[in-house]
Amino acid sequence: MAGNSSGTIFRVTTFGESHGPGLGCIVDGCPAGLPLDIEDIGRELNRRRPGGGGPSTTRSEADVPEILSGIFEGKTLGTPIAILVRNTNQRSGDYDKLKDLYRPGHADWTWEAKYGFRDHRGGGRSSARETLGRVAAGAIAKAFLRVQGVTIRGWTSSAAGIDAPLFGEPNFDFDEVEKNPLRFPSRELSELVLQKAERLRNEGDSAGGTVSCRVTGLKPGLGEPVFGKLDARLAAAMLSLGAAKGIEFGSGFDAAYTQGSANNDRPIPGRRTAGSTHTLPPGVPDLEYAANNAGGVLGGISTGMPLEFTVAFKPVPSIAKKQETVDRQGNIRELIIEGRHDVCVCPRAVPVVEAMTALVLADLVLLSRMDRA
Amino acid sequence: MAGNSSGTIFRVTTFGESHGPGLGCIVDGCPAGLPLDIEDIGRELNRRRPGGGGPSTTRSEADVPEILSGIFEGKTLGTPIAILVRNTNQRSGDYDKLKDLYRPGHADWTWEAKYGFRDHRGGGRSSARETLGRVAAGAIAKAFLRVQGVTIRGWTSSAAGIDAPLFGEPNFDFDEVEKNPLRFPSRELSELVLQKAERLRNEGDSAGGTVSCRVTGLKPGLGEPVFGKLDARLAAAMLSLGAAKGIEFGSGFDAAYTQGSANNDRPIPGRRTAGSTHTLPPGVPDLEYAANNAGGVLGGISTGMPLEFTVAFKPVPSIAKKQETVDRQGNIRELIIEGRHDVCVCPRAVPVVEAMTALVLADLVLLSRMDRA
Amino acid sequence: MAGNSSGTIFRVTTFGESHGPGLGCIVDGCPAGLPLDIEDIGRELNRRRPGGGGPSTTRSEADVPEILSGIFEGKTLGTPIAILVRNTNQRSGDYDKLKDLYRPGHADWTWEAKYGFRDHRGGGRSSARETLGRVAAGAIAKAFLRVQGVTIRGWTSSAAGIDAPLFGEPNFDFDEVEKNPLRFPSRELSELVLQKAERLRNEGDSAGGTVSCRVTGLKPGLGEPVFGKLDARLAAAMLSLGAAKGIEFGSGFDAAYTQGSANNDRPIPGRRTAGSTHTLPPGVPDLEYAANNAGGVLGGISTGMPLEFTVAFKPVPSIAKKQETVDRQGNIRELIIEGRHDVCVCPRAVPVVEAMTALVLADLVLLSRMDRA
Amino acid sequence: MAGNSSGTIFRVTTFGESHGPGLGCIVDGCPAGLPLDIEDIGRELNRRRPGGGGPSTTRSEADVPEILSGIFEGKTLGTPIAILVRNTNQRSGDYDKLKDLYRPGHADWTWEAKYGFRDHRGGGRSSARETLGRVAAGAIAKAFLRVQGVTIRGWTSSAAGIDAPLFGEPNFDFDEVEKNPLRFPSRELSELVLQKAERLRNEGDSAGGTVSCRVTGLKPGLGEPVFGKLDARLAAAMLSLGAAKGIEFGSGFDAAYTQGSANNDRPIPGRRTAGSTHTLPPGVPDLEYAANNAGGVLGGISTGMPLEFTVAFKPVPSIAKKQETVDRQGNIRELIIEGRHDVCVCPRAVPVVEAMTALVLADLVLLSRMDRA
Repeated sequence: MAGNSSGTIFRVTTFGESHGPGLGCIVDGCPAGLPLDIEDIGRELNRRRPGGGGPSTTRSEADVPEILSGIFEGKTLGTPIAILVRNTNQRSGDYDKLKDLYRPGHADWTWEAKYGFRDHRGGGRSSARETLGRVAAGAIAKAFLRVQGVTIRGWTSSAAGIDAPLFGEPNFDFDEVEKNPLRFPSRELSELVLQKAERLRNEGDSAGGTVSCRVTGLKPGLGEPVFGKLDARLAAAMLSLGAAKGIEFGSGFDAAYTQGSANNDRPIPGRRTAGSTHTLPPGVPDLEYAANNAGGVLGGISTGMPLEFTVAFKPVPSIAKKQETVDRQGNIRELIIEGRHDVCVCPRAVPVVEAMTALVLADLVLLSRMDRA
Repeated sequence: MAGNSSGTIFRVTTFGESHGPGLGCIVDGCPAGLPLDIEDIGRELNRRRPGGGGPSTTRSEADVPEILSGIFEGKTLGTPIAILVRNTNQRSGDYDKLKDLYRPGHADWTWEAKYGFRDHRGGGRSSARETLGRVAAGAIAKAFLRVQGVTIRGWTSSAAGIDAPLFGEPNFDFDEVEKNPLRFPSRELSELVLQKAERLRNEGDSAGGTVSCRVTGLKPGLGEPVFGKLDARLAAAMLSLGAAKGIEFGSGFDAAYTQGSANNDRPIPGRRTAGSTHTLPPGVPDLEYAANNAGGVLGGISTGMPLEFTVAFKPVPSIAKKQETVDRQGNIRELIIEGRHDVCVCPRAVPVVEAMTALVLADLVLLSRMDRA
Repeated sequence: MAGNSSGTIFRVTTFGESHGPGLGCIVDGCPAGLPLDIEDIGRELNRRRPGGGGPSTTRSEADVPEILSGIFEGKTLGTPIAILVRNTNQRSGDYDKLKDLYRPGHADWTWEAKYGFRDHRGGGRSSARETLGRVAAGAIAKAFLRVQGVTIRGWTSSAAGIDAPLFGEPNFDFDEVEKNPLRFPSRELSELVLQKAERLRNEGDSAGGTVSCRVTGLKPGLGEPVFGKLDARLAAAMLSLGAAKGIEFGSGFDAAYTQGSANNDRPIPGRRTAGSTHTLPPGVPDLEYAANNAGGVLGGISTGMPLEFTVAFKPVPSIAKKQETVDRQGNIRELIIEGRHDVCVCPRAVPVVEAMTALVLADLVLLSRMDRA
Repeated sequence: MAGNSSGTIFRVTTFGESHGPGLGCIVDGCPAGLPLDIEDIGRELNRRRPGGGGPSTTRSEADVPEILSGIFEGKTLGTPIAILVRNTNQRSGDYDKLKDLYRPGHADWTWEAKYGFRDHRGGGRSSARETLGRVAAGAIAKAFLRVQGVTIRGWTSSAAGIDAPLFGEPNFDFDEVEKNPLRFPSRELSELVLQKAERLRNEGDSAGGTVSCRVTGLKPGLGEPVFGKLDARLAAAMLSLGAAKGIEFGSGFDAAYTQGSANNDRPIPGRRTAGSTHTLPPGVPDLEYAANNAGGVLGGISTGMPLEFTVAFKPVPSIAKKQETVDRQGNIRELIIEGRHDVCVCPRAVPVVEAMTALVLADLVLLSRMDRA
C-alpha cells in the first residue's frame, strides 16, 4: 500500500511539497450526514501555524483551506473530502545553497538514496509543512469524534530540558495550554522555557521536548487485535511525525522498572451513568480501574479510562550553528543553515499529535461497528 | 482491514487461540525461489519456548511446526505459506476458576467489552502464545533478509530493575545473549537478575524490563513516507505485542532533553565497499554518519547505519499474589492466579521482537523495489 | 496487497496446493457471536465435490474440514477462523509425465514466466482444488448472511451448448437444481446435456457453459462507490475463478443492443413490509422497480431487487484428445492428458460462484454499517 | 478500505462531484524519476471531452488540469501526484426540478438508500464526470507503461445495434478510431451509426454499445493469483464504470459454447527478439500461442499475447422521452429529462476504459517486481 495513506475505513491521503503549488488531503470513508464546515478545518490549521513569539518559525502563511469536494449543504456526502491549502509564502531562494548539501539530521540524503532525487526546496515533502494535510483531515475526524463525546487534548509536557507538571498535579493548568506560545500547562514554567529557548536561538541551537496527549470519552472496546491494536495504531501514527523518536503509553518506560503488583490497575465496579452513549454488550458488567498505569489500553483495546501517551521529539535539526556535512560530490563541507526555523517543535506538534490521534480513533470507532454479528 | 494481518507485500496473518486446536500463520507475498525448510522455522520457535530455568513459565510444549503449503522441493513457490503448530499441552482446567473473573492487567474485560464474549482459557487469542504464528512467519522473513545480508539481533537490555551494559560498552557481550536464560548481554549481571527474579517469584510478583534490537546490513532507502515510515512501521509492530508499553529509536527519549548541535549526526563520506549488495542511485554519493543518535532512520527512511531501538515491557500481570478484581456479576472479588507464568517477558520476547522486525523489514525491502521508475 | 486475500472487513485468505499437505483458508473479520459449526462448512464442501455421474471428475476426496481457530462454544469469537482440509487422495504420479510440458489452456507456462518455477502436480495452486478454501470461507459468509435474510442460489444456465430455461420461465425448475448432477434447472434438459457431455467425454473433449446466480433479500444501499461497487466487486470475484471468461449483470450484453427507453427500469412505490429487517434512512421513501434489467444494481449500489448475474466458463482445458504443445526445452511435443477431469466445470462451479458471492456480500453488508454518521 | 481508491502500489484515489468546486485524483505510488508533464494529462482529458458532433453531450468544459504536487523539474518525485480540474461550466439549475425525483436508470435512489442524502446536481459523484480523475491518473499510468513498451488502444466495437468489424478483419481500420466522433474502426460504418444515433436523439432516446480494448507489449507473468488476477482486476476496473453491465476476455461468452479442443490455444516456440525488454526467468523457455482465445491471460496471468477484452455499456439512462418515476414523497410522477446528455457513452468511454486498463497494468507491472526472491 502506498505510503501516503493511513486508516482502514476513515482513510486519509495527504499530498504536497513544502514549496510546490499546494498541500492537502483527501479523506475517504467519512460517513455521510456529518455537519462540517470550513471553519472546523481553518481553526485547526490556525493552531498549527507559527505563533506569536516563542520557539516557533517566523514563516507565517495564511494557510487558507479550500474544500474541493465531499460537502453539500453543510454536511458530508459520504464521498471523498478533498482539501487544498495553497502555498503562498515560499522563499525557495533560501534553499538554493542547500541544493547540493545534505543537511545533518534531515532526510535529504536518505530521500535521495531511496528515490534518486528530491525537491530540495524546504525539504520538499519531508518538510513539517506536510502535516497541514494531516491537521485538515484530523479536523474532520475531530468533528466526527465530538459527536461521540470524545475529547482529545495535547500539550507540551517537556521542552528545552524543563518538564511540565504531570497531569493531575496541583500546578498542572489545562486552561493555560492554549494561552501560551509553548502550549505548556503552567504559565510560570512556560516563561522559564521561553527564556531558555531564546538563549538557544541566540546560540544558533535548538531543543527537544515531549508532547503528551489525553483522550477522554472513549468507549471501551476500541482497537483491533492483534496487529491493529489501539496503541499499535497510535504508535505508528506518532512515529510517522518527522521528529518523533519515541512513544510511551501510561506508565510507559517506568513500567519496565516496576513489579506486577504495583503496575496492575485494580478493576472496580463501573459507574457509567444511564445517559452514557456507550453501551456494553449484554452480560458484560460495567468496569473501571482504580489506577491508570495502562494508559487506557489493555491488550490493545481501550479500557474506557482516559487514553494517555507521551511522544518524544528530537531537537529541530535546522540550526544556525556551523555544522559539517557532505555534498553531492562526496566532499566534506561546512554548512550554516539560514531561514526561518522553530527552536522546538513541540508547541506546533501539539495540534498535529491531536490530529493524528483523531484520525486513528475515528477509524477505530468505525471499525468497532463491525465487532459483533 | 481486518486486524490479524500485517504488511503490504510480505503479508502475515496469524490465527489461533491459546487452548484451541492450534495456532499458526499464513505468509502471503513471499517471493518465489527462496530456499526454506522446516528447520528454519523450528529453530526460531524453539528460541521462543520457555527456557531451562530463569524467569520463564514452566509450560513447555514441543511447538512442532508443520508447513501446509507454499514450499515445493525446498523452495518457496510464491504462493501462501501456511504453518500450523498444534496445541498439545493445554491445561485448560487451570483457567476454569477464572472464567467469570477479569484478571487485572489482562485483556479479559476489554475483550468482552469489544466482542461480547471470549475464550477464557489461557487468555484465548490475547495469550502470548499467539506470537507463535509471528515467530514462524518471522523465520521466513529472516530467511529472506539473510540473502540480503541483513542481521537482526535482540537482547534483554533491562530486567527486574537491572540495566544491561549498552551496546558498545566494554562489558557488553553479544555472544553471551543466547547462552543465558535471560538473553542478557553479560553473564555476571544476568546472574544478579536471576536472583532478583527468583526472589520476585517467591513473593508471587513479577518484573518489567526492556528489549533492545540492532539490525545491521540494511541498505539505505528503506521506509515509505509519510505514513509507512520505517520507524512508524516498527513502532506499530512492537506495540502490537501484548505487554509492550513504549518504544524509542536511537537516542529516543533522551533526544527530547538535548540540543540540535548535540543530537545531529554528522554526515561523512561513505565507505561501502565494491562488493556491497547495496547500490545507490546514479548521482547519489555514498554517505555515513559519525554518530547514530538517529538510530539508523532519518525522515522515516533507513540511513544505512545500524537500526537501533528499545521496547519497554510491563511486568507480567499474572502474579501469584492475592489481588482484588471484579467478577461477571460486577462484584468485587479476591483473586489468586495459579498456573505457569513468566516472571519477566523479556527473554522470550527477544525472538518475537526479532520476528516482528524481520516482518517489517522484509516488507520494506520488497516495497523498495518500486521506488524508481 | 498480496494476491491470495480478498475483502476489506470480512477478509479471506486461501492457501494450499492441489497435491501438497492440505488446503484451506483464514477468515479474518467475521463478527463475534455468530453461531457456526463444522456442519455449515462440510455441507458446502460436499456440494463442491465431484458428484455421482455426469460431467465431473472421478477424483473423490472426503474433503473433511477442520476448524483450527476462531470458534468457541459454537460461536465465532471475532478472531481469525482458520480451516484446514487435508489432501488424502493425490495421485501425483499422474502428473509426472507433464512435469516438463506446458499444457494448453492451463497456467503452467504463465506461472513459470512469473515465478520461475511451479509445483507441477495437479496444477499446484492453479488447480481448481484451490477453491476448497473459498467454499469453506463462503460457508461462513453464508451463515452470516442467512441471519440478514439473504439467500444465494446458483445454477448451471448453459452447458455443452444447451441453454437452460431462464429464471421465471415456466419450465425453469429451481427445486431441480440440487437434484441433478448438472445443477440444471430442468430435469428434461439436463438429460440432454448429460448425453452430450458423455459423447464429448468419449471423444476426449470437453465443454464450456455458464453459471447464473440470483440473490434475494439484499437490502438496498450495498456497494462502495466508485471502485468498490457491488458489481465491480462481484466481477473481480467471478473472474478470479480459473475458467471464467466473462460476466454480465441483468440484461448484460443485451443491454448494449437496446435503447434507454427499453432498458430503464421504471421505479414504483415500494412495498417493504413493516417486519422487514431493512430500514431506509429517514426521509427516503421505499422504492421498487417494475423490471430488473439492472440486475439489482444501479450505480454500483444494490437496488433491493434480486441481484442477477451470469458467468461464462470456458471448456475444461484438460482433454484426452491428442494435442500439441512445447516442452521446457522449447521443443514442440505431442501431449495426451490422462487422469481424472471434469468435462464441464459448471456444476461444480455453482457452489464456488455462490461462495464468492457470499464473501463479497458479507463484506459489503459490514461496510454498509459505516455509511452514515 | 474506502471505496474511492484502487490499486495496491500504483494507487489512485479520485474525488469530486459533478457540480462541486472541482474533481481530480491523487496517484500515490508512482515511482520516482518518470518524466511527466501537464501535457500528458491534458491530452487524455481532451480525448474524454464531448467531441464535435455525434452522440455526445454538448456540455463542453475546458477541463484544464493543474498538477498540485509530486512533480519537480519535469519528473515524478515518488510522492503523491495530486491533480485538480475545476468545474467551470455547471448549469446546476438544469437539475433543480429533479431534486425530489429519482431518475430511472440512475443511482439517485440507491445513493440515498445508502447515504441518506445526495448532491442531486448532475448526479453529484455518480456523474460520469467523476471519470475525469480516473483519466488524469490513467495518463500517468500510461506514461509509466510507455517506458515499458506497452500500448493500450480502445475503440467502440458496437453502438446503436451496429457492430464494428472485428480486430484483424480486413475492414477494421485502427487509424480511423481517433478520427471519427464515435471512435469506430470503420469510417463507413461510423456514418451509419451516427445516422442511427441522430434518429434516436430526435426520438428522445439513447443507445447502448460495447467498447473493446487491446493491449500489446505486455510481458508474460503479470497478475496476482488467486484474487488479484489480471482479468479479475480488469473486470473490477471496468464494472466500476457507471454504465458497464458486462465484460468478456478473449473468446468470452462464446467460449461457453465451444469445446476444449477448439478453445485451447496451441503453445508454440516463442520468438522474442534479443532486444526485448522482457526477460524470462532462467530455465523458462520462450513461448507463444498459435491463437488467442484466451485473450492474453491464462490462470489470471498475462501470456505475452495481446490482452483483449470487450465491455458492454447500457444505453444512457438520461433520455428526453417522457418517463414515469417516484418522487421523494413516494408518489408516481411523470418526468422529462432536459439538459445535455450523450446518446451513447461508448465514444467517450474509450479513453476511460484505456485509463482504467493503464491503472491496473501499472500496478501489476510494479507488483511483478516482487515475484522472485
